[in-house]
Formats: sequence, C-alpha cells, structure tokens
Amino acid sequence: MEVSPVYMQSDDSEPNRPAHPRGCLTGEAGKSEHIRAGHYVDFPVSVVLPAGGTGERTGLQTPKQFCCFLGRPLISYTIESFERVLWIQTVVVVVAKENIGLMTDIIQRFQHKKVRVVAGGSTRHRSICNGVMALGEEGKPKVVIIHDAVRPFVDENLLYQIAVAAKEQGAAGAIRPLVSTVIATTSEGYLDHSLERAKYRASEMPQGFRYDVIHQAYQRCTESDFEFGTECLHLALQYCGTNAKLIDGPPSLWKVTYKRDLAAAESIIKETLSQSACLITGRWEAGVTLANVLQKAFGALDMELNVMPDLMGDNIRYLLRDWNFIQLSVSHSCFSEVEALLVVLKSEKRALLHPVVVISLHLSSTEEPSTSRRAEESAALMGLASTAKLQNILLYGIRLHQPGDTEQWERSALRVAEIASALIGDRNPALVGQLLQA
Amino acid sequence: MEVSPVYMQSDDSEPNRPAHPRGCLTGEAGKSEHIRAGHYVDFPVSVVLPAGGTGERTGLQTPKQFCCFLGRPLISYTIESFERVLWIQTVVVVVAKENIGLMTDIIQRFQHKKVRVVAGGSTRHRSICNGVMALGEEGKPKVVIIHDAVRPFVDENLLYQIAVAAKEQGAAGAIRPLVSTVIATTSEGYLDHSLERAKYRASEMPQGFRYDVIHQAYQRCTESDFEFGTECLHLALQYCGTNAKLIDGPPSLWKVTYKRDLAAAESIIKETLSQSACLITGRWEAGVTLANVLQKAFGALDMELNVMPDLMGDNIRYLLRDWNFIQLSVSHSCFSEVEALLVVLKSEKRALLHPVVVISLHLSSTEEPSTSRRAEESAALMGLASTAKLQNILLYGIRLHQPGDTEQWERSALRVAEIASALIGDRNPALVGQLLQA
Repeated sequence: MEVSPVYMQSDDSEPNRPAHPRGCLTGEAGKSEHIRAGHYVDFPVSVVLPAGGTGERTGLQTPKQFCCFLGRPLISYTIESFERVLWIQTVVVVVAKENIGLMTDIIQRFQHKKVRVVAGGSTRHRSICNGVMALGEEGKPKVVIIHDAVRPFVDENLLYQIAVAAKEQGAAGAIRPLVSTVIATTSEGYLDHSLERAKYRASEMPQGFRYDVIHQAYQRCTESDFEFGTECLHLALQYCGTNAKLIDGPPSLWKVTYKRDLAAAESIIKETLSQSACLITGRWEAGVTLANVLQKAFGALDMELNVMPDLMGDNIRYLLRDWNFIQLSVSHSCFSEVEALLVVLKSEKRALLHPVVVISLHLSSTEEPSTSRRAEESAALMGLASTAKLQNILLYGIRLHQPGDTEQWERSALRVAEIASALIGDRNPALVGQLLQA
Repeated sequence: MEVSPVYMQSDDSEPNRPAHPRGCLTGEAGKSEHIRAGHYVDFPVSVVLPAGGTGERTGLQTPKQFCCFLGRPLISYTIESFERVLWIQTVVVVVAKENIGLMTDIIQRFQHKKVRVVAGGSTRHRSICNGVMALGEEGKPKVVIIHDAVRPFVDENLLYQIAVAAKEQGAAGAIRPLVSTVIATTSEGYLDHSLERAKYRASEMPQGFRYDVIHQAYQRCTESDFEFGTECLHLALQYCGTNAKLIDGPPSLWKVTYKRDLAAAESIIKETLSQSACLITGRWEAGVTLANVLQKAFGALDMELNVMPDLMGDNIRYLLRDWNFIQLSVSHSCFSEVEALLVVLKSEKRALLHPVVVISLHLSSTEEPSTSRRAEESAALMGLASTAKLQNILLYGIRLHQPGDTEQWERSALRVAEIASALIGDRNPALVGQLLQA
C-alpha cells in the first residue's frame, strides 16, 4: 500500500485547525476523507484511549478529559475524532472505576457509537494494558492505535500514516521537534550538560502497534515497567525488538496539560465553528441588496457567507453542515421564519455536538415601531431564545434600519457583519435573546 | 542574602495567572512586591530581551512578539513584566533592523520608560550578544537577565530567584519538567532509545548571568556557537566553567510558539482583567438593594464586586486599579454619571495598557419610555461608546426593569451579573454601545 505524499507532510502553516471540522455529520461531510482520496485502510484497526488522568497539572478539580468546552467534555471531542474515521472499528476508553458511570453518560448523551468503556488500572501502562486485553476479547484487530484522551485534534491523515506504518514495521509513533532545549541536571540542581536539540524529538501520540507486538510487550514487561514506565514505544523495542517508525505530526497533536491549554482548546473549537455562516434571505426584495453587501462585509472579516432564499432542495446541505445561520426578516414582530428554522435544527439534532448560532436579522422600515410592539418583539425573541438554549441553539437578534443610499447600505452591512461575527465567535450563552442594534 | 521559602516554590495550582496583574499601575499596586515582602535586590540588574524571531511556527505573517492582544503587542506585555520590578534598571530589546521603527513606536505609544532598542544580529546568539555589549556601554550591571520576548507572564518571584542565584553562582536558569518523553532517533527515522524522563528537564527562560560570565562566554565562543547554538547556559559552562544553578519555574513561563498559544495568552490576559468589577451606585435608594443582591450574584459567578456610592476620597484606589466599572443610574435618558466616569478614566489614562470596560446599568421604573425617548437613549449611548472606544474604553448598556418582589430582585440580579460578566469576559469591541435587556 503506497502512501501518497500529500499525507506525509506535516502542515505547520495551519497548525491548529482540526482537519475535518464538519466530518462528524451525516451526508457528504461525513465521508471518510481517505475514501474520497482513494486511500483506505483495509485491515482491522481499533483504538485504546487511556483516560484515567487526575488532571493535577491544570490545578482544576475536574480531570482535564472531563472538562467541558461549549458544553461538551473534552473526551467526547477526542472520541469524535476517531468515530468519523470510517476504517476505525472500536474505541476502547479506559477510565478509573469511579468514572465509568460518568463516561457511560457522556457516550449516551453525545450518541457515540463505536465506544466501549473499560475499567483502568492503577497506572497508565496498566490502563492501556487493560484496553489492549479488552480488544482481544472481541476478535483482535490487526493494529491498535493508542492515543491520549486529552489530545482532541488528531486528524485522519496522521492516523492513516500511523496505522500503515504500524502494520508494516510493528510499531509507529508521532513525534514533534523539541520546543525547549533539554538539559541533564546534577543531583544538586545544577546544569550537567545540554542535549543537542537536532538529535532528539518529543514523543507524542498517537502511536500504533501490531496487536501481537503490543500484546507481547505487555505480557513480557516487568512490574517496574507497569509502575514507572511511560513510553509504549520503549516497551515494544525492549521486549519485542521492534524499532518504531517515527512520523512527524502536526502541532495540533499537542496534549492539553495546563490550564492555559484549556483556553487554547476552546479557542480552536470556537474558531473552527466560526469559519462561515449561512444567510437565509427569504423572498424579500430588500434581501437581495442586503445579501450582496453583507457577503462583501463578512469577507472583509475573513468569514464566508453562503446566501440562499431558503434551505429547501439542494440547500439542505448547508443546514446539515453549517454552524451559524442568519435568518433575514422584514415584517414587524414576526419570528415565524426563525421558528421554522429552529424546528428543523432541533429535529435534525444539529446542535448535538456543538452549539449552533441562529441570528434573527430584522430589516425594519424607517417608520419606528410603537413602544408596546417593540416590547412584544423583545419578549418574543427572549422567549424563543430561552427555549432554543435548552437545545444548545444560541439565538440572538439584530435590528437594522433600512438604509437610504448605497453608502449607507455598505456601512450598515459592515456593522451587521461585525456584530454577527462577534456573536458567532464568542458563542456566549449569556447574551442569547438580546436584540442588538446595527 | 537569604531567599524566603515562599519564593522558592513553583505554584502549579494557579498556573496561568500573571503574578501582579495590576502591578503596572501607579499607587500602592505599583509597588515592587519584594519591597513589601522585605526582599530587595541590592545590586544592579538589567535585562536583554531578544525579539528578532520571525514567527514561522505560528504560521502568521506578523512575528509573534508583535501580534496584538486586546490592541497591544505581546512584547509590550513582556516589557511591562520587567518594568514593574523596581530593582530592574534597563531592558535592552534586541530587534531586527527592519523592526526598529516599529519597536520605537510601541515604546512611545505604551509609554515604556526603561527600554533601549538595539539592532539584532543574524542569529539568536548574535542578537543576545549585541544586547549584552550594549549594556556594557552604560556602566555594566552586576547581573544580566536574558528572557524571551514571547514569554509575557514572567513574575517577580522568579526574577528575584534567578538574579540572586546568578550573582552567587555566576549563572542560573529556569527549568520545567518535560511534558513529553524525549527520544533519540536513528538517521532513518526510527526509534533509537528513549530518555529516562526523571533525569532531564526542559530549559526555559529567564536565565541570569553575572555580567563578566556572559561577556566572557561571548568573547570566547566560536562562530559555530554563534551560528547554531541555542543555549546560553551551555556557553557559560563550556567557556567559563560555570555550572548554572537550575530553578523550577511556574508553568506560566511557557513560550508563545504556536497559533494556539496566542489564544491561550489572550485568554489569560482577559481572565486576569475580569476578576472583579466596581459598582458605583450613586445616591439612589434603589441602588442599595440592587447592590446587595448583585454582589451575591457576581459572587456566584466567581467575580468580586466592589460597591461604592462614588469614586471620591478613598475609593479613588478602585479607579486606579480596577478594569471594570458598572455605573448605576435611575433617571431616564441620562448618562451624566457615565460621562463623568469616562472623563476621569481618560484623564487618568487608565486604558493605556488594557481596555477598560464601563457598563451603564439603567434601573428603569415600570413605566415604559416612549419610542422617541428610547431611540434618543440608544443613540446617546452609541455616540458615547464610539468616542470612548477611541480611548480604549469599552462602553455597554444594560437596562433592568425595577423588579417587584425579593425573588424578582434576585432573578434580575443574576441576569445582570451574567450579562455583565459576559461583556467583561469577552471584551468584544464589536458590541460597544449596545443596550442589553436584563
């Protein structure tokens, strides 16, 4: 099996974007990339995901893998990364006994399909070993991929390389250049010597093993390895004589270790969800003018705006893959289009994995609404937003007075784009139901 | 000089908070912590800050040190960390020739006082060497601290330890445990062996040297060291026989390297600015009731709310150190208190280093304002906000209908707290001037 060069390169220029932000959905976007690209792993591959960590380095009470990002625990994102790869069969998640209930709830709530939960051991190696043994019970796979629950952004390209190299060489692991110089210390806390950076690499995850290699390594290794060892590649070398193939991974592999990493992960997720929005204009005449200037304005903010009159027919694909919708309306006090959109989003469970943003953009005529009508409007929006929030849909409103001339249109469109992209980027649940003024 | 144990521990439990978020201001908060704690470095210490990096690992066009966070370049935050330490004399920033103009602008704009700009060389060591030589021209200091422009959160405790150890031992450097296992690779890209993690450390910054040690090291080192070397501690060992003292640093020392680190840095800065807010009630009777329930509501969101009738007398200290102000008003269409607050904030240049948030909280009676009055109010707020934004002050409005009973007061207070803390936490300039409904 040949590996196309396109998958061998580590792309440092776009370091933090998960490769397939929308790959978890049904339809076209759900297709495994390697099928489309003509690559497919034709041997059984399963995954062991040790998730027994206690999270002491973040300084938080909740272990990192259970910390929530936009309402969903980190480990669910990691599982999602594996579930969307069609050629991966089972994901064995190994958690501490006391977290089995929690983990089972997470699997149910976010409807993970390929996952099996196994109780961990007292150390990382004992946990991984339990996972490997559990895989053996149900017809052992050819290759086992071992990953960390706290590295949520692993992409299919790398998994493909690891799986193929593991099958051929017996073991394979992702590496990264060292960020800092590594030094050896004396027992008194002084510099002994520094290592030549070019000769060393940081060993990262994922790692892949032929099932027989990792199984044998754990059969033969010592109590001390189980207790103090950290590196599976090392066990494969020591107990099976297998020199792992090392593969350069992208920076997005990084491990969520410190509190700052939680912020970085959240920001990556938010950015991924905020690349584009879908403007539904309806059949209003003014909508066409607005759509044109809005598209330019969003473009200036590096955001793609897909414009369509409705989500019927072919446009259903946007409904199934976009995370942000702007529904234009023209008549007063009327949220019927938004209500219809909310109904479809709910029935499609579109907000199961990520919060979906819906913005009701109201283009009002020059005539001011009466105080009581305006109050009704605000109350209606707030009511809808409260209900939608329970479904993980964040509804906001923007009111725009119909501009007079072209220049005014452009200025107004830019204001709308700025406000909308702020709401979409921040995804702040505390501001739902607010009617903002463009 | 003895070092108190309180400064020797690396505090992993609060890993990312800069030690003195408000230390950059005038008054009490500006006092160097070691004076208050009875510690003071009584020998001359200066800093060399190499900032010549090209930022290729972030994948951005702007080098990382010049990337802006809330409107201010990263390097200005790093400079601020040194400037607020009273016993540090000069900070020599070494930048590529083409960036000298940019750097000079940054120094002027953010009113840095201790900084001298020097042109860098073609490699990191040549740049540091230029900085060290430049310090020699103006009466050489006893100790030189070398740091990275892209590690903005260095705290005074660690600088103190490094300076003292450098004076005593000749050289000292911050270290951190390794996050990943380090492995040696064969030339064909296979695992050769893995290092025993416990014996090695990541060498970080800051590092400190007696001036004569680092000066001699650079006099004696080879062209190859200048070209390919990375580690100053190594040069001190090789050319001066000085074994550096290694000091455990906090995780906040980390180096902004990848795009995700930019997000992490921004989030740390925002979190630091969002710890507390200052509620100015005026003399309204309703203000007292509201203040009490609001204080509880903010507390539930882990935010401190300092309540005062005005910023006169002793309360001026909040004006000089808080980053968030909530101005209560009761009468309609009247922003005179907010206007007065804006004037003082401007005259004190409070928003020079960080954006200040001002929220106009309007407690309205049950009677609805007329349409035209409401439009006037919105326009007035937007106008004020646009002007304030030019001064780096972010003004938002929240309107609250005076609640009827106690239970309603509590519910309303929680809504206000949620909205205010969202605005304060996100600090989004695109939403200024909006009048939100609690």
